[in-house]
Amino acid sequence: MNAWYEQIPGYLYGSSEIARSAVSRQDLEKLKVSAGFTDEDARFLRLAGKVLEGQTEKIVRHWRNGIIANIPNLARHSRTPEGEAIPKYLDASNLRFERWILDTCLRPYDQDWIDYQQEIALRHTRAKKNKTDGVRSTSYVPFRDVIAFVAVMNETIKPYLSAKGNSAEEIDKMHRAWCKSMQMQLALWIGPYSKARQAPEEW
Amino acid sequence: MNAWYEQIPGYLYGSSEIARSAVSRQDLEKLKVSAGFTDEDARFLRLAGKVLEGQTEKIVRHWRNGIIANIPNLARHSRTPEGEAIPKYLDASNLRFERWILDTCLRPYDQDWIDYQQEIALRHTRAKKNKTDGVRSTSYVPFRDVIAFVAVMNETIKPYLSAKGNSAEEIDKMHRAWCKSMQMQLALWIGPYSKARQAPEEW
Repeated sequence: MNAWYEQIPGYLYGSSEIARSAVSRQDLEKLKVSAGFTDEDARFLRLAGKVLEGQTEKIVRHWRNGIIANIPNLARHSRTPEGEAIPKYLDASNLRFERWILDTCLRPYDQDWIDYQQEIALRHTRAKKNKTDGVRSTSYVPFRDVIAFVAVMNETIKPYLSAKGNSAEEIDKMHRAWCKSMQMQLALWIGPYSKARQAPEEW
Repeated sequence: MNAWYEQIPGYLYGSSEIARSAVSRQDLEKLKVSAGFTDEDARFLRLAGKVLEGQTEKIVRHWRNGIIANIPNLARHSRTPEGEAIPKYLDASNLRFERWILDTCLRPYDQDWIDYQQEIALRHTRAKKNKTDGVRSTSYVPFRDVIAFVAVMNETIKPYLSAKGNSAEEIDKMHRAWCKSMQMQLALWIGPYSKARQAPEEW
């Protein structure tokens, strides 16, 4: 039997349909050093994964309905150009969003993970946005808004990390590890955004 | 009499030599919303500025000598292509680094600030790196390393925010405000990096 997340529309982690990134595991090791991401951080991310499992629906609802929906500049990326809701798009991308939280915490940071970071970024650029779900929406998400919204996710994830009775020190270490992973992911996402054809007007 | 920082070589904040950014204050307001940066954050950054004043030399020494110097991949950007130290370059850029900490906390986020973010980014790209100090070093700092090192700065600034006896709540709020400002600055820095001519190989 397949895991639940293998049923998520468009969730192709580890599949042969996902293009190989030019970023190697060696590049990622250098990036870890630049971000100060250690084996201890990897351990605390796994703990964070256990803590966040079962909370991801609530977290994504918080981010999407509680925050993004109230920021027209961000909400438009899940809507048609005329501003109409696209429930199918939102449902599928919310499930992928949930799974991404757990992938951040629980997946080994190997070539599959690197490749999927590229796929995630591409799906926010003109190259692939809307294609996975076959919808009509904004043609890309400006990278500046992705970077900025990471600040919101970093701030708002903390209460969920605190929800299972871990010690203050454990919560802090889980949070630090999460924040470092976010910066590494942003650093990987910048690659697809930097392609000459799409970058200048998509920053 | 001029303020001490006006004597820093190459520190041209607010000067007419600094190019105007295409990013407007209105764009910045949108970015603040995307990053969840509020007036309260601005207030706590000003408090952080008071707390960090007098500590910036120690902080930059920590970052440069304690961390960057031990990461060859990062340290090379202050050295000649042959790996020799360039003390004059390091001294001047360290002073600017110190001043940047205080500018982050104490300057109003107005057009001058936006314009100087563009200047800071340009000085890390092929367009302007080394030119301010007239040195021979790496031709650019890959943006992925800038993004990654922000994680290190965010983590290591916290003890300095705690050094003046503020309450745990104040320290936490100063730290959150700092982290949000970092993401907004990264979002502004991506602009100059996204210029088609330099981006593809500088991500």
